[in-house]
Amino acid sequence: MSRQVTYPADTVVILGLGLIGGSLARALRRSGFSKRFVGYGHREPSLRRGVELGVIDDFTLDLDQAIGQADILVVCTPTLVAADMLRDILPRLAPGEGGPVITDVASVKGCLRDAATGAVGAVPPRLVLAHPIAGSERSGVEASDADLFINHRVILTPVEGNDPAAVELVRAMWASTGAEVVDMAVDEHDAVLAATSHLPHVLAYALVDALAQSAASADIFRFAAGGFRDFTRIASSDPAMWRDIAIANGPALLDSIDLFSEHLGRLRQAVVDQDAQELFNTFTRAKQARDEFAAVLAERGQRKS
Amino acid sequence: MSRQVTYPADTVVILGLGLIGGSLARALRRSGFSKRFVGYGHREPSLRRGVELGVIDDFTLDLDQAIGQADILVVCTPTLVAADMLRDILPRLAPGEGGPVITDVASVKGCLRDAATGAVGAVPPRLVLAHPIAGSERSGVEASDADLFINHRVILTPVEGNDPAAVELVRAMWASTGAEVVDMAVDEHDAVLAATSHLPHVLAYALVDALAQSAASADIFRFAAGGFRDFTRIASSDPAMWRDIAIANGPALLDSIDLFSEHLGRLRQAVVDQDAQELFNTFTRAKQARDEFAAVLAERGQRKS
Repeated sequence: MSRQVTYPADTVVILGLGLIGGSLARALRRSGFSKRFVGYGHREPSLRRGVELGVIDDFTLDLDQAIGQADILVVCTPTLVAADMLRDILPRLAPGEGGPVITDVASVKGCLRDAATGAVGAVPPRLVLAHPIAGSERSGVEASDADLFINHRVILTPVEGNDPAAVELVRAMWASTGAEVVDMAVDEHDAVLAATSHLPHVLAYALVDALAQSAASADIFRFAAGGFRDFTRIASSDPAMWRDIAIANGPALLDSIDLFSEHLGRLRQAVVDQDAQELFNTFTRAKQARDEFAAVLAERGQRKS
Repeated sequence: MSRQVTYPADTVVILGLGLIGGSLARALRRSGFSKRFVGYGHREPSLRRGVELGVIDDFTLDLDQAIGQADILVVCTPTLVAADMLRDILPRLAPGEGGPVITDVASVKGCLRDAATGAVGAVPPRLVLAHPIAGSERSGVEASDADLFINHRVILTPVEGNDPAAVELVRAMWASTGAEVVDMAVDEHDAVLAATSHLPHVLAYALVDALAQSAASADIFRFAAGGFRDFTRIASSDPAMWRDIAIANGPALLDSIDLFSEHLGRLRQAVVDQDAQELFNTFTRAKQARDEFAAVLAERGQRKS
C-alpha cells in the first residue's frame, strides 16, 4: 500500500538562486512544504552548483518554462532586478484566477507594487509581496542555510485585490521555514525599513567615508576601538545591494534622513550653546529607548531559540 | 636576610574610585608597580568598599592629605569633574620640581590643559595628561578588573614644559597594566576621539531619539533587527558621562558633526538625483575603508591576546 503525500505547493521555482533563494529552498524541502525545487536565472554555473548541492532538483534558463511549472514563483533577486523581473513576468501570465502564486524577498515593496501596476495596470491577485528580514555577511547558493529564517520576521505586504488564498499560501510557506510572519501595509513597510535599516546603513557609509577621506584618517582608524567597530559594521555591507535599496526606497529614505538631520541639528545646537541639560535629557531619552529595545530583542531571542 | 623591593612609585593615590580608578589600582598592584594604594573622594561608603575589596589599602576624605602621601596622583573622575579637580589641586602644590606626578584618565584633554593653564598659568612640569581607551558597560569599584587595560591603547598627551621623568613614569605605569602606550598632541587627541568616538555616540543618540519620538516608534523598534542593535549599542552609554564629553570637547565635536553632515548631505543629494553611480562609489569606498579597519582591528586582537 502506498500513501499519497500532499504538499501545499508541489513545485517552487526560485528566480535568482543566491543566499536567500537557496536558503528558502532548503528550508521548504526540510519542512515538507514542497517536493520539487527549480532554479531559474542567467548564470548556468550557479544553477548547476545548486543541483549538485541538492538545493534544487532542476533548473531552466527559459522564463516561460520557469513560469509554466511553478506553483509558487519566488523572485529572489535584488530589489531593482526584482522590479525588472516583475515587468517581464507579469505580462506573460494568462489573465484570470490561474497560474502560479508569485512572491519576492526584496527589501523595498513600494517599487515592486509600482512596477506591477506599471506593467499590467494593477497588482495581480496572485502577486503577494513579502520581505524576510534575514541575511548574512556571506552570499551565494554555497552559503545557503535551511536555518536562516528561524526566529526572523517575514513581513507580508498584501494589497487590496490580492487573492486571500494566495496570501495564505505565501504566509504558510514562510511559517514553515520557522519565521514569524506579520502583515504590514506597503508604505508602512517602506517607512519602517527606511528608519531601522536603510537610514542606519546610509549613516554608517557616510561616517566611514567622511573619516576615510579626512586628513587624519590614518590616526582615526588607528585609534578607533570596539564601539566604532560595532557602529560601522553595516558599512561593510554589499554596495550594489544598498545602492539599489537607496534608489528603490528614495522617498522614505529621504524622509528618514531629514528626520535624523533635524534631531542631529538640535544636538549640534545644544553643543554650540553648551546646553548641558538639553544634552543630558536627549541622551537619557535615547538610552531609555535603546535599553527597552535591547531588552525586547533579547527576550524575543530567548523565547524562541 | 631580607631583600629590599623597590617600586617605580611607592604610593599611588586614586581620586575617584570607580571602574577605571579601581581597575588601575588592581592592575598596578598585580604588576608590582606600587606597594600602596590610597583612595580619595567624597563618598566614604565606596572608598570603604574599595578597602574591603582589597583594591585600595587606605583612603582619605582630605585633599591635602591625599596629595601629601602621593608619588603619583591619578584623577579618575569624569571629564568636567577632572577639570574642577585640577583647579583645586594645582594651586595647593609647592612650586618647583617636587611633589607628586599628577595624571588623569579623562576622555578629553584640551579642557584639562586649559583648566591647568587657567589655574596656575601653565601646565605644571609634573602634570601629564593621559587617556586610557578602555571601559565597560559596568561601573563602580565593584566592577573593577585588573585585566581592563590589557590590549587597549593609552594615549599620553605630553606638552612642552613637561618634566621628561614624569612623562616616563606615567608611561611606565600604564605599560605595567598591559596597555599599549602611545603619544599624541592634545589637540590631535581631541580631534581623533571626536571623530571615532564622540561623533558616533552623538549620531547613535540622535538616531534613537529621533525614532523613539516618531509616530511609528512602536513598529520601528518592533521590526528592527541585529544590524540596528549593533549600530545603536553605544546609545546605551551613560548620559551624564557623554553630556560632559560633548561639553568638554565642543569645538572638535562640532567640526566632526559638520564634516559628517556634509558627507550625509552628498548622499542625500545622490538619493534625490537617483544617482546610482555616486551612491555605488561612496558605498564602495566606505566598505573598503571599513573592511581594512576591521582587518587591522582583528589582527591587533589576534597578535596580542
